[in-house]
Amino acid sequence: MRIDIITVLPELIKSPFEASILKRGIEKGLVEVHMHDLRKYGLNKYNQVDDYQYGGGAGMVMMIEPLDKLIHELKEGREYDEVIYMTPDGVTLNQGMANHLSLKENIMIICGHYKGIDQRVRDLYITREISIGDYVLSGGELGAAVLCDALIRLIPGVISDETSALTDSFQDGLLAPPVYTRPADYKGHKVPDILLSGHLKAIEEWREEKAFERTRERRPDLLNED
Amino acid sequence: MRIDIITVLPELIKSPFEASILKRGIEKGLVEVHMHDLRKYGLNKYNQVDDYQYGGGAGMVMMIEPLDKLIHELKEGREYDEVIYMTPDGVTLNQGMANHLSLKENIMIICGHYKGIDQRVRDLYITREISIGDYVLSGGELGAAVLCDALIRLIPGVISDETSALTDSFQDGLLAPPVYTRPADYKGHKVPDILLSGHLKAIEEWREEKAFERTRERRPDLLNED
Repeated sequence: MRIDIITVLPELIKSPFEASILKRGIEKGLVEVHMHDLRKYGLNKYNQVDDYQYGGGAGMVMMIEPLDKLIHELKEGREYDEVIYMTPDGVTLNQGMANHLSLKENIMIICGHYKGIDQRVRDLYITREISIGDYVLSGGELGAAVLCDALIRLIPGVISDETSALTDSFQDGLLAPPVYTRPADYKGHKVPDILLSGHLKAIEEWREEKAFERTRERRPDLLNED
Repeated sequence: MRIDIITVLPELIKSPFEASILKRGIEKGLVEVHMHDLRKYGLNKYNQVDDYQYGGGAGMVMMIEPLDKLIHELKEGREYDEVIYMTPDGVTLNQGMANHLSLKENIMIICGHYKGIDQRVRDLYITREISIGDYVLSGGELGAAVLCDALIRLIPGVISDETSALTDSFQDGLLAPPVYTRPADYKGHKVPDILLSGHLKAIEEWREEKAFERTRERRPDLLNED
C-alpha cells in the first residue's frame, strides 16, 4: 500500500511514523508513506496556502490552487483508489471502514487546517470524507495519523502476532474482555481464579461472557446494530 | 492546566506537541505537558513493563507494578482531577466531553499498548476511560495526542481567534457550512454568488441553511439528540 499525505504541517506527524507499528510496516516494505508539504505549492513569494473566507467570518480557508497543483502532480504518477479529506463533518471512521480501506493500493489523504479547505476542492477531487470522531481538532494531521495507524496495523505481516488483532475490540462486534498478567496477587488485589485454572474451555466461556457484559453495559448500541 | 502522559513510547507522540496549537499553548504557559516513560519504572534488568496474559491467548498485557509505582509518584506531587485511560472500550470522546475536560487543572492520561493494561489498574486508579472512536489503534498514544489537541485548543488564549472555535462543527450541534476563498473563479469553478454579495444577513442565513442541510444529509443523528 502507498499512502500520500498532503499537509501544511508535515513536522506535526513526523514522530508517529518513526515509531512502533507504523515504522515496522514501513521498514518491512509493506507500506510506503509519503508526506507532501503543501507550502511548496503555495502562491507568491510567501508560499501562501490560505486566505480569508468569502462572505466574512473568523478563520482562514485553504486555497484551491496549491491543492489543485499538488493533487494533479500526484495523480500523474499513479491512480488513486481514494482521495480522502479528513474533516469533522465527514463519515465517522469505524473498524469496518478501516478493514475495507486496508485493502486499497494507493490512498491520498488531505489534512485540512484552519477553517478547512475550499469547498471546490471537496467537490472536484475528494472521493471520501472521513472524521475520526465528533470533536474538533486543530487540523487534520492527527486524524490522518490515526487513520494510517488503524489501516496499517491490519496489513498482513505488519503485526507480528496476527491472531492478536482478531481478538481486539470491534472486530467481532464486542468490546474486549478484561485482561490480567503477573503477579496473580498484587498487594492483595487478585486475578480472577478462573484465569489461573488452566481450564481452557471455561476460560473461553468466561471471556465471552465478560466481553458481552462489558458491551451491554458500556456500548449497548453495538449489540443493536445487527 | 497540567497534563501528565504515561506511555511506553514517548517518542511516538513527540512531534504533535512540538508543532502548531499544542506548541503554542505550551509556549504561552497556558498548559504544561509532561511525558513519562513507563519503561523507567519497569521491572528487572530488562525494564520489563508487560507480560503474557493469564488464561492464555495472543498479545501482551501491561503489568500493574510499574504503573502503580509511577501513578503513586505523580499523585504525591499533586491532586489529579482525572486519571484517564485511553482504550477502545471507553466512553467515546465528543465535543461536550472535551469542553468539560478543558476546564480541569490536573489530568493524567495512561496510554495502553499491546493488549491493554492489567484490569486491576483500571479498577483501582482510573476515573475515566476514553475512546476516540470505534476502531483499534496500535496503542493509546495517538488517542492521547488527539484528546490533548481537542482540550488544549479550547483553553482561552491558545487559539488567537477564539470566535473561530465557536463556529466549528459540533459546537452548536450542527456541522459547519461550506467555506470558500480566493479566487472567486478557478478554471470555471465559481464561488456561490451570495458569498460575494456583501449582504451580511443573507450570507448568515445561507450559512445556517447549508449547515442544517449538511447535518441532515450526513449526520441526522446530531439533529435528533435534543
